Amino acid sequence: MKQQIRLLGIDDSPFRFTDKYGMVIGVVMRGGSYLECVLRRNIVIDGTDATSVCKDMILNSRYKKQLKAVLLDGIALGGFNVIDINELYNDTSLPVLTITRDKPDFEKIKMALKKKFKDWDNRWAIISKGELNIVETSNNPIYVKCIGVSFEEAKEIIKLSTIRGVIPEPIRVAHLIASGVTRGESYGKA
Amino acid sequence: MKQQIRLLGIDDSPFRFTDKYGMVIGVVMRGGSYLECVLRRNIVIDGTDATSVCKDMILNSRYKKQLKAVLLDGIALGGFNVIDINELYNDTSLPVLTITRDKPDFEKIKMALKKKFKDWDNRWAIISKGELNIVETSNNPIYVKCIGVSFEEAKEIIKLSTIRGVIPEPIRVAHLIASGVTRGESYGKA
Repeated sequence: MKQQIRLLGIDDSPFRFTDKYGMVIGVVMRGGSYLECVLRRNIVIDGTDATSVCKDMILNSRYKKQLKAVLLDGIALGGFNVIDINELYNDTSLPVLTITRDKPDFEKIKMALKKKFKDWDNRWAIISKGELNIVETSNNPIYVKCIGVSFEEAKEIIKLSTIRGVIPEPIRVAHLIASGVTRGESYGKA
Repeated sequence: MKQQIRLLGIDDSPFRFTDKYGMVIGVVMRGGSYLECVLRRNIVIDGTDATSVCKDMILNSRYKKQLKAVLLDGIALGGFNVIDINELYNDTSLPVLTITRDKPDFEKIKMALKKKFKDWDNRWAIISKGELNIVETSNNPIYVKCIGVSFEEAKEIIKLSTIRGVIPEPIRVAHLIASGVTRGESYGKA
């Protein structure tokens, strides 16, 4: 795999529970080092538009044709606004990787969905899609779902785009931008 | 000079002439490659708060003590909201470099200030501070003012923080963030 492939990393801004909308930031990077483009959309907190917002961001970008994969910080944006990674893959033809540092506690998530949403079973069905893989790192393991690439290829994409710590640069940089723009100064994720 | 020195790059967002406020983005990078922090402030379009906004951004950042220099995209933010680089240097103790790709047309600037502002002579006095140096590159030359470092040191800072094109990464990345967040997709500056 080429080291300089273009990857899109997506992350959301921090929000208060009184906020109706949050910010979603996408960054296009070559491999793990060179920032080429910054994208922004709004999203409904705890809404149901995460998949369409991500699709819109990708399909309308002038980098669409050059992208090789999409990297997501987990399976949801703006609270429990869950991303259907199968639909995202099918409609963009781009492999999708979700990356999480903490092992998801699925029972706890299911309970929270049940308590909060009438349509909890839809959200739960979307979250449950795909197999959760463990990727060992020199630090703690990370948890990865992938669609459109093999697990081996997913590990290679993660490796070539990670500089320090365990989080690929496109996700780390998207996080710094989303939190810095919202709060005035970003807080770390490494 | 160490290659991994921390630099703060500052740029403003694009704006429409009906906007009252614009966004100012600061990025802390190690040398020319590793993004560590994103900062954001608002600024009055054509106002007089650019110097205090930059000072506030720097003095309140948790990276303040580690910064070695501030890189500005020209001498103004948000239209003609001019930055007093002497004051910025004196109050932050950080060297300041302004970098411009196009040779400033000072007569044209003076005319525009006279036409637009009652306090044009204050703004003009601030813009006129410091000597404009030419830095030759493999492409077109760039125009640089510096305070707190020698011109030789300023050239070294520019060289170590430029990856592609002629603009140092902290300014290029601040520009991509400011324009991407404001417009939805950034446009280039390389």
